[in-house]
Amino acid sequence: MSNSLAKIHVKTSTEYDVLIGENLIEQAGSLVKNVLGECRIALITDDVVDKLYSKKVISSLKESGYDVIKFVFKNGEQSKNLTTYGQILEFLAQNEFTRTDAVIALGGGVVGDMAGFASATFLRGIRYIQIPTTLLAQVDSSVGGKTAIDLSYGKNLTGAFKQPELVICDTSVLKTLPKEIFDDGMGEVAKYALLDKKVFKLIEKGDYSLDELVYLCVDYKRQIVEKDEFESNERKLLNLGHTTAHGIELLSGYTISHGRAVALGLRIMLNAAKKHLNINEQVYEKIIGVINKCVSEERCAYQIKDICTAMLNDKKRSGDYISFVIIYGVGDCRIEKIKTVDAMEYLS
Amino acid sequence: MSNSLAKIHVKTSTEYDVLIGENLIEQAGSLVKNVLGECRIALITDDVVDKLYSKKVISSLKESGYDVIKFVFKNGEQSKNLTTYGQILEFLAQNEFTRTDAVIALGGGVVGDMAGFASATFLRGIRYIQIPTTLLAQVDSSVGGKTAIDLSYGKNLTGAFKQPELVICDTSVLKTLPKEIFDDGMGEVAKYALLDKKVFKLIEKGDYSLDELVYLCVDYKRQIVEKDEFESNERKLLNLGHTTAHGIELLSGYTISHGRAVALGLRIMLNAAKKHLNINEQVYEKIIGVINKCVSEERCAYQIKDICTAMLNDKKRSGDYISFVIIYGVGDCRIEKIKTVDAMEYLS
Repeated sequence: MSNSLAKIHVKTSTEYDVLIGENLIEQAGSLVKNVLGECRIALITDDVVDKLYSKKVISSLKESGYDVIKFVFKNGEQSKNLTTYGQILEFLAQNEFTRTDAVIALGGGVVGDMAGFASATFLRGIRYIQIPTTLLAQVDSSVGGKTAIDLSYGKNLTGAFKQPELVICDTSVLKTLPKEIFDDGMGEVAKYALLDKKVFKLIEKGDYSLDELVYLCVDYKRQIVEKDEFESNERKLLNLGHTTAHGIELLSGYTISHGRAVALGLRIMLNAAKKHLNINEQVYEKIIGVINKCVSEERCAYQIKDICTAMLNDKKRSGDYISFVIIYGVGDCRIEKIKTVDAMEYLS
Repeated sequence: MSNSLAKIHVKTSTEYDVLIGENLIEQAGSLVKNVLGECRIALITDDVVDKLYSKKVISSLKESGYDVIKFVFKNGEQSKNLTTYGQILEFLAQNEFTRTDAVIALGGGVVGDMAGFASATFLRGIRYIQIPTTLLAQVDSSVGGKTAIDLSYGKNLTGAFKQPELVICDTSVLKTLPKEIFDDGMGEVAKYALLDKKVFKLIEKGDYSLDELVYLCVDYKRQIVEKDEFESNERKLLNLGHTTAHGIELLSGYTISHGRAVALGLRIMLNAAKKHLNINEQVYEKIIGVINKCVSEERCAYQIKDICTAMLNDKKRSGDYISFVIIYGVGDCRIEKIKTVDAMEYLS
């Protein structure tokens, strides 16, 4: 068993550590105990992750003296809705959870969102811990406290800001992820590569460990979230490629995964930057190379016109303007508002 | 039309004014405009209040240039659930509400809770304004940002802290409230009388205006909420009489209203104080006199034993201890933890 363990401390309204290393799931009990002390724990997971890791996690928690109850829902974005949310709340209430008890989210982004939003609102907030089991969740969604569920009119339309008490990123679990799930995370990694020179160089260099990759992405996100926890300003940078991505996801009926859509969105934003900002051809090629290293190139099946129509239903629209993160260069992306009516011309 | 208008400024994470006066509903448009500026507005109300006041409010808002949409749900606590919550969220999404738009809650405590919780979580938070139309909502629930919905396992088990941008207490509307609804609010007023000497003296003296009454209660609540917005400490004082009240409400299948249950809860706490703290007989009689002036005396139909069993399912229980607010005297109530197993003996 490797003893690799890196720690990133996040200074937000609730301060917490993100632990990154191999075989951390086996040590979940003691890691959790250091943070929560004695309490009851509700482990929330999906049926796919349940089969793989629940037993290990629960056994470690029990060794540390925890009384654990478990709630399992069906894997996939289609579970990220008000119905599952209500079921989790009733489950916690039925088990007489109090404000001193805690939730652990074991799984990918959907599990983190569901468990996080339930923890944010059950009794107006109880503590929760994230144990992300996908690359996307480790580098992005488990850190920073954004939680949300989907409505029938769109994704992530309801939620809360709720920081976890601890995030445990066990990079061993990433090694057995199905390729498409791993690639989904690499879409978000490509975003970090454009936002942060350190991540860009790591990908460009190649031959890095998953610990290094997760560490650099989380550490960049930490800086942003510490400056702007509630997404009033800088944090919107993390939406790079996302506005167009949400349009693409919507058009595909969510058959294109979030990370793949983000990679497509990044390519659209990069082409727009090339057109409007005279980005040097050499820089452009370098960036495209790094995006390709993350997520292999694919043709976007949709036209800009249709993507624009779809994305205008996205919640990031604020009245007559729409926010975009514009790529000026690696490590130099800027949030700009564009008139909704001009968006299509800008992206075309 | 009277020009009475008092203003209380509440300094919480979001700062806001509580306006108290007569005929304010007719001026809603300009009062709202001062705070929100230009945006779209979703008016959320129940079917009873809708018939009485929606037209006036909407007409005033339109005069001030607002585009208003309206969502109406069935009056009563049985609407305060996940289903109505989901309907409100989908309504906002369907109407493409963005982060710059706002909600107005027009109604009593249930409307304020539903609209408040929806505003707290739609797009992770949009602005909302309270126009409370019951005494209970004006003196208590519309101020301080506690929002919640009921689960099948109990009342107020899910919610959020979300401060409004403005509270408009039109005291004219209180004059036409049905007696039982007015008395419901007087149960909370009795609580304030025990917590705050100024309110106690006002009730004892009698012959006060509704403006004075609402002002003093809200101003007391302001002080408490400013000190402890998220109910870590002092704010628990506002739960005086509530722990037992929730048990009584539960036992009655919610046929006993919240305010009446609070008045019964206050009597239980006062009797416990007399028994354990040797409260002077004269003081005891003075307090009972003031409670009676608020809510006429009635025999509690339930035994302490049953009330205790019911209240132990209440969310204020924290593990093996239960929090009570103990009456040491008028303006001297203290939060104390009692072992759950000793609670029945203490209250009997």
